[in-house]
Amino acid sequence: MAMTGVLRPGHAQVRVLELEKAVTFYRDVLGLVETGRDDQGRVYFKCWDERDHNSYILRESDQAGLDFFGFKVLDEATLDQLEKDLNEYGIKTRRLPAGDLLETGERVRFTLPSGHDIELYATKTAVGNGIPAINPGPWCADSERGIAPVRLDHTLLYGPNIAEVKKIFVDVLGFYLVERVLGEDGDSEAAIWLSCSHKVHDIAIAEYPEPGKLHHCSFLMESWERVLRAGDIMSMNEVPVDIGPTRHGVTRGCTIYAWDPSGNRFETFMGGYQPYPDYEPLTWTFDNFGQGLDYPQRKLHETFLTVVS
Amino acid sequence: MAMTGVLRPGHAQVRVLELEKAVTFYRDVLGLVETGRDDQGRVYFKCWDERDHNSYILRESDQAGLDFFGFKVLDEATLDQLEKDLNEYGIKTRRLPAGDLLETGERVRFTLPSGHDIELYATKTAVGNGIPAINPGPWCADSERGIAPVRLDHTLLYGPNIAEVKKIFVDVLGFYLVERVLGEDGDSEAAIWLSCSHKVHDIAIAEYPEPGKLHHCSFLMESWERVLRAGDIMSMNEVPVDIGPTRHGVTRGCTIYAWDPSGNRFETFMGGYQPYPDYEPLTWTFDNFGQGLDYPQRKLHETFLTVVS
Amino acid sequence: MAMTGVLRPGHAQVRVLELEKAVTFYRDVLGLVETGRDDQGRVYFKCWDERDHNSYILRESDQAGLDFFGFKVLDEATLDQLEKDLNEYGIKTRRLPAGDLLETGERVRFTLPSGHDIELYATKTAVGNGIPAINPGPWCADSERGIAPVRLDHTLLYGPNIAEVKKIFVDVLGFYLVERVLGEDGDSEAAIWLSCSHKVHDIAIAEYPEPGKLHHCSFLMESWERVLRAGDIMSMNEVPVDIGPTRHGVTRGCTIYAWDPSGNRFETFMGGYQPYPDYEPLTWTFDNFGQGLDYPQRKLHETFLTVVS
Amino acid sequence: MAMTGVLRPGHAQVRVLELEKAVTFYRDVLGLVETGRDDQGRVYFKCWDERDHNSYILRESDQAGLDFFGFKVLDEATLDQLEKDLNEYGIKTRRLPAGDLLETGERVRFTLPSGHDIELYATKTAVGNGIPAINPGPWCADSERGIAPVRLDHTLLYGPNIAEVKKIFVDVLGFYLVERVLGEDGDSEAAIWLSCSHKVHDIAIAEYPEPGKLHHCSFLMESWERVLRAGDIMSMNEVPVDIGPTRHGVTRGCTIYAWDPSGNRFETFMGGYQPYPDYEPLTWTFDNFGQGLDYPQRKLHETFLTVVS
Repeated sequence: MAMTGVLRPGHAQVRVLELEKAVTFYRDVLGLVETGRDDQGRVYFKCWDERDHNSYILRESDQAGLDFFGFKVLDEATLDQLEKDLNEYGIKTRRLPAGDLLETGERVRFTLPSGHDIELYATKTAVGNGIPAINPGPWCADSERGIAPVRLDHTLLYGPNIAEVKKIFVDVLGFYLVERVLGEDGDSEAAIWLSCSHKVHDIAIAEYPEPGKLHHCSFLMESWERVLRAGDIMSMNEVPVDIGPTRHGVTRGCTIYAWDPSGNRFETFMGGYQPYPDYEPLTWTFDNFGQGLDYPQRKLHETFLTVVS
Repeated sequence: MAMTGVLRPGHAQVRVLELEKAVTFYRDVLGLVETGRDDQGRVYFKCWDERDHNSYILRESDQAGLDFFGFKVLDEATLDQLEKDLNEYGIKTRRLPAGDLLETGERVRFTLPSGHDIELYATKTAVGNGIPAINPGPWCADSERGIAPVRLDHTLLYGPNIAEVKKIFVDVLGFYLVERVLGEDGDSEAAIWLSCSHKVHDIAIAEYPEPGKLHHCSFLMESWERVLRAGDIMSMNEVPVDIGPTRHGVTRGCTIYAWDPSGNRFETFMGGYQPYPDYEPLTWTFDNFGQGLDYPQRKLHETFLTVVS
Repeated sequence: MAMTGVLRPGHAQVRVLELEKAVTFYRDVLGLVETGRDDQGRVYFKCWDERDHNSYILRESDQAGLDFFGFKVLDEATLDQLEKDLNEYGIKTRRLPAGDLLETGERVRFTLPSGHDIELYATKTAVGNGIPAINPGPWCADSERGIAPVRLDHTLLYGPNIAEVKKIFVDVLGFYLVERVLGEDGDSEAAIWLSCSHKVHDIAIAEYPEPGKLHHCSFLMESWERVLRAGDIMSMNEVPVDIGPTRHGVTRGCTIYAWDPSGNRFETFMGGYQPYPDYEPLTWTFDNFGQGLDYPQRKLHETFLTVVS
Repeated sequence: MAMTGVLRPGHAQVRVLELEKAVTFYRDVLGLVETGRDDQGRVYFKCWDERDHNSYILRESDQAGLDFFGFKVLDEATLDQLEKDLNEYGIKTRRLPAGDLLETGERVRFTLPSGHDIELYATKTAVGNGIPAINPGPWCADSERGIAPVRLDHTLLYGPNIAEVKKIFVDVLGFYLVERVLGEDGDSEAAIWLSCSHKVHDIAIAEYPEPGKLHHCSFLMESWERVLRAGDIMSMNEVPVDIGPTRHGVTRGCTIYAWDPSGNRFETFMGGYQPYPDYEPLTWTFDNFGQGLDYPQRKLHETFLTVVS
């Protein structure tokens, strides 16, 4: 197949401080579709245009942050092969049983040198996007309930050892480097944007001393006008906005960063271009990352560098 | 790799009746970037945001239409393997030498049961998109010269035996079915939309008695507002418009169809959604293809069914 | 005052064949806000962002069409003066009592030489747009219920004697000519667009043998993306679309024309430019009105010329 | 006439520190059309879609700021009447001769209690917008040269005594109050938005101890997408951006504020709604002006309050 191996970001499990407050936020303000709750008390959501059962799972905890980020792979044989490849590369994996996450098959979990838990899985029940598969319309009522992103697009993680992380994604999992920001030395990479598809990023990682930190999960919007609407809804609901609306220089994407009630940053994102694995990566110099972050303002917002969960 | 095998539509060679008139049109009205001419008199273009040397080639002829449509594959090893796979499947291929198309490596050509020549190739010189690879801006002057699509997006071909064509793309080349229109019998497929990526189509084919016909080559626009601007420029230049601006039900994409001075239809296209190979294909019934073609008008424009080159 | 005299289109009373079917359409599909019903059985609507009690009134009848179109004037003194001016010009007027239309003051009605009843009024109860007057947000829930235009923008009337109609609007009511289409003789005006503000039109009139005909009432949308969404909703609800989405050459505005269940055409419109009374009117020649109507397609749709209610 | 008295903002004369640097900026970056230079060395510009000879005039000086802001009135009789009205109200005026500003008739100048010089004039040569008056297209090449606003939209002035200023605009010049921000006392007005049309503002004034200060001149953009493009061009040209892209709560308009090379703030603005003189003004409370200024971020940017020229 042409699209094979790792297909796409499939799910993120995020820790929230007060579950019901978080549920209200993600359901009514961000406008995700609640699809289930499990006996651990976790609450499952999907974006309206996603077809699999869940993509964003909330777990109550006394500390915000990311439990794990999962990628869907093509099929079970691919899952087995990638697990084997990871093991051969020297990365320990463990299997989580089917059903541990609702409507989700076995997952292969491993820990990145940056301290993040990543999962691969091949199976998640297709529940559809609320539009019939016969003569489908372009959208449905859920597409205008709250901010209503179309899908979980990517995540940005903060942690140490990103050079090693990059090797795992590129050499073992078949991702490729799309863009990067150089460190102050002009040589090392301070942040990298990686794709397993022709999106500008399926995952991004920035060098950071503390391991396992979540910078943001990103949700895809359909237009710049929908990003504006997202900002309106944030304001109407007193959601604390970090940056935006603006355009990133990196990826060309347009964005608003904001925080959920527990302090997990999320992004409403649109745009960018379509890279392919034969493309030369684009590079942002250390001194110019302000333009890479906030293209019109050319400003390296302090919070972007320091606030994580 | 996750993106492997066939990557993307890479080039189309199109026949035009009067070369210089066509060059003027594609350069000044559609706003492609002219990148070269060869000793056969062919003129080479790329869209501004494409990085390879060429994607659209004009050849003067007394009859409009498509000479061939080419896909870029990941690398030369992939090219060899796919050629072998095609041959094993029973499809004859022939190699065209590197350099036969400017700045392009060896191509593997074969003829579909629909009468169309398809090519695979792994190598084409990267010339960039006019934006530096270090601290790149989001666009450049060429992005506003004429209609200025960002890339060659897909083609729609008309010819016989599309069930067999589908097998070749799906079973040999790793494409998957994204959407389809059923025939009047409610069972056969009258038209199919196939992807080798997570685009709503990299190629589409409709059943048609005459072999080898071009319905349109499609060029990607960045927004619905840019589609409107495309329509303005068409009008200012007296380009004959076929359909649009409108939204397709099929793919959700937004479109204008128009004809080049030789009668080759082209499309300025944007939008759609992001399918993946694990998605259930969407189906349009025969009686409802009007809505599939022109969503607001629910109208099966006669020209769509009958005018090809 | 700088804005004085006639302020804006204020209300249209339209005849529909089946009242409840029409109410369902205008409320749930076009997304108007129902504000009342009177003892004559008329149903009153406003657009969500209008602040006066009503702007679109349905009356059940066995024949579709327009009963009257009303303009709000600055105040009662202005109403008296304009009535006097009309009478002095030789136009008979009659007063309709306050309360005859719900929440509306006295109206001055007169008949144009084109056979249309026009009204002026100074008073209609302000009910607000659903957004508080203190710290107002940019929109509210009603702005996404159905097509949800922001206001009644203008009307286009078909009837005879438009040269005389023009004089009344320009010489008595203070409108000015913004654009015009010339007749086949290259001298007479076949259609005129008139403004009492800096909108591209508050009313338009086309020469037509049959008196008193409604071509369309037009509803204002906020963006080209909202016009696309309007088309989607029309399709989802099987609303018969006449023309569009497209751009008019005349006024530069973007449009979809469609019909209500009784056969009254309506328009979802956006854009245009801001003319002022010191501007030279723009002229479309008879042979080029196709481009004036449908800019991308340069097509004089037959229905535009012949289908009225 | 319905549009009478004061029609619209007609011109601003702005002081710049280095004339040629400023000319380069306004012509090539903001994308105004240079229309002339006079024997005082002043350089004249218009926005591409304006039809009068000039709307923005640069004068070299050792201090940035606004010399005067002018409004076009309907005709010379209106000019005479308004001058008389001003004088009767107790405001001294003086006449500047026709031709003092290129292609501009006599101007009536007076000084506001806020220390700003305001002008009224009735005559300025119509030079057109570069589009023919017969069968005009919707835009022309100048509409994509630089940021390319369509017109000078409004100004925001900072100075003392705005309660008195308001009276002059409302009681003498026929403007009306559209929105206002209350002072800390909850009663006084800290800033007011005034319209002589159905724009959300033709002029705005904020209470400020120092007289005669310019907060910004505002230029109208056609869409939110064009505001994004404006931000891109600012970044490409290292224009210092103050705030945005974002939406104002006040007026609902969308904006970027930035500074010209001399430190004069300007705005690229779009949107808002259509108020009329019969509308109740909208009020923003002192504590909530952050949301009024930057709706998504609900942030009272310090520079907005303190940086003027």
